[in-house]
Amino acid sequence: MTAEQSPDSLKAYIDEHLPAFLPAIAKADGGTAAEAAAYSLAVGGKRIRPVLLLATAQMCGVAKAEALPFAAAVEMIHTYSLIHDDLPAMDNDLLRRGRPSCHAAFGEANAILAGDGLLNLAYETLFEALVVKSTPERLAAAAELARAAGFRGMVGGQCLDLSESLHEEPDKALYAIQRKKTGALIRAAVLAGARLGAAGDDVSGQLTDFADALGLSFQIKDDLLDVQSTSGTLGKTTGKDARDGKLTFVTRYGGREAERIFAAEMARARAALSELEAGGLFVTTLRAIWRYLEQRTV
Amino acid sequence: MTAEQSPDSLKAYIDEHLPAFLPAIAKADGGTAAEAAAYSLAVGGKRIRPVLLLATAQMCGVAKAEALPFAAAVEMIHTYSLIHDDLPAMDNDLLRRGRPSCHAAFGEANAILAGDGLLNLAYETLFEALVVKSTPERLAAAAELARAAGFRGMVGGQCLDLSESLHEEPDKALYAIQRKKTGALIRAAVLAGARLGAAGDDVSGQLTDFADALGLSFQIKDDLLDVQSTSGTLGKTTGKDARDGKLTFVTRYGGREAERIFAAEMARARAALSELEAGGLFVTTLRAIWRYLEQRTV
Repeated sequence: MTAEQSPDSLKAYIDEHLPAFLPAIAKADGGTAAEAAAYSLAVGGKRIRPVLLLATAQMCGVAKAEALPFAAAVEMIHTYSLIHDDLPAMDNDLLRRGRPSCHAAFGEANAILAGDGLLNLAYETLFEALVVKSTPERLAAAAELARAAGFRGMVGGQCLDLSESLHEEPDKALYAIQRKKTGALIRAAVLAGARLGAAGDDVSGQLTDFADALGLSFQIKDDLLDVQSTSGTLGKTTGKDARDGKLTFVTRYGGREAERIFAAEMARARAALSELEAGGLFVTTLRAIWRYLEQRTV
Repeated sequence: MTAEQSPDSLKAYIDEHLPAFLPAIAKADGGTAAEAAAYSLAVGGKRIRPVLLLATAQMCGVAKAEALPFAAAVEMIHTYSLIHDDLPAMDNDLLRRGRPSCHAAFGEANAILAGDGLLNLAYETLFEALVVKSTPERLAAAAELARAAGFRGMVGGQCLDLSESLHEEPDKALYAIQRKKTGALIRAAVLAGARLGAAGDDVSGQLTDFADALGLSFQIKDDLLDVQSTSGTLGKTTGKDARDGKLTFVTRYGGREAERIFAAEMARARAALSELEAGGLFVTTLRAIWRYLEQRTV
């Protein structure tokens, strides 16, 4: 594997180029919300979604510079969702990625606007990329991201997560929430990479299996870390799920069973990678991301 | 003028087709936010932005069915902004278009998500329209709307409106807020119609003059109606601007001077229409919209 293709180098590539997508607006011109958005975007995190997008695109023969606007857009969408999820009316969280959450730092109104603006900026970025070069593949990639972020995906999942009456069927609700709230955008990131590279149905199907299994185990690991880690290590409030009576894989099934499902899903993701490899694809980077996610402690 | 082209028939066309753009999601699948969005979208209003878009597109030779997804998107963007503006952390308003505002009816979390989902749905709608038929003109129209809605437009304007320190230069702030918060999307609606019809620079310039003057007078009329009308007539809380110490054309300059600026801007808009007409364009519908806005009492 060349240095070019390691997950770390892809993450560094995102971190380096992301700020340039934000418009520089003076505070006197209404730039406080943009400043708040820049703050949340800069605080960082693992950049899993854009790294997955770039890695998949590269695997399908697309240069990372070509995929960059799409990767930036998916990280903007993810970051907006964190800002809004942390709001007092939602999860009411003051800590995010080891620093004050957006509304804790900039006030509630600016955090709402920062989220709105970031979501919108994701689409400004995608349209600009399409104006530069419009192909059916690039359009399909953009549409994939948009669908996953909306009512049928992430927004619907967060709504479901906040709804108490739905927890009457907790097993069903738990998987439905995960699939929409976190799974949809992870799957869309991978599939957008595949669309950019005009991947065929076979490869897209295998990548969907990979992404769905990886997304589910990613969520379960988050649930596990909420009880196994500390706020200092994790950079967000821990132990909160049980306290808030939140439905998670750990509060529902207990830690040991959650570990078992995690391992089973990671195995499923690995199997999908082996199939892709058997089909002649170069899965080294995706496998390195898999390994990183298996071992992560934050 | 045929019945086809009256502002009323264009508004009826929007009202008829808008609901079909919303995804039908069962409540059990996280559909409460979508239901809240459908509520706010159905409550109606004047549909000025989509009517302007359709009228301009028709003037530039584009059939209304072709322009419909763009018109629907601009109304979704407008409605999301109303939902978020009404939130407790923003303007804190319980009444909108004669009925409870979105968060008054569905709770704050659902209103935040309904707004997020509607904004996203605008872009899902645009991408779907582009997948069906991708031309540089349609892409330019979509990009025009996206730019106007973001940090450099509507989001920046709302941020400016909430910022107290900026009111140190009230005249400058007042015009800057209007230009971004309400003006940008009205201008974008008109220009998107022009882009769809591949209008040249001359026509686009005249339409920009028309839209900017119309947008400014639209805002001034809103400010005037806040003091001249009643909540019952207007369907939203009136007399609120002065009570909240809000910077408006009326609180800043007084009613008489606001009336004078309104009339001057309406004259400027009419002059732009005459120029378009002199260039051989059929401005009957835009003129009818102008007349409706001049006389409106709600």
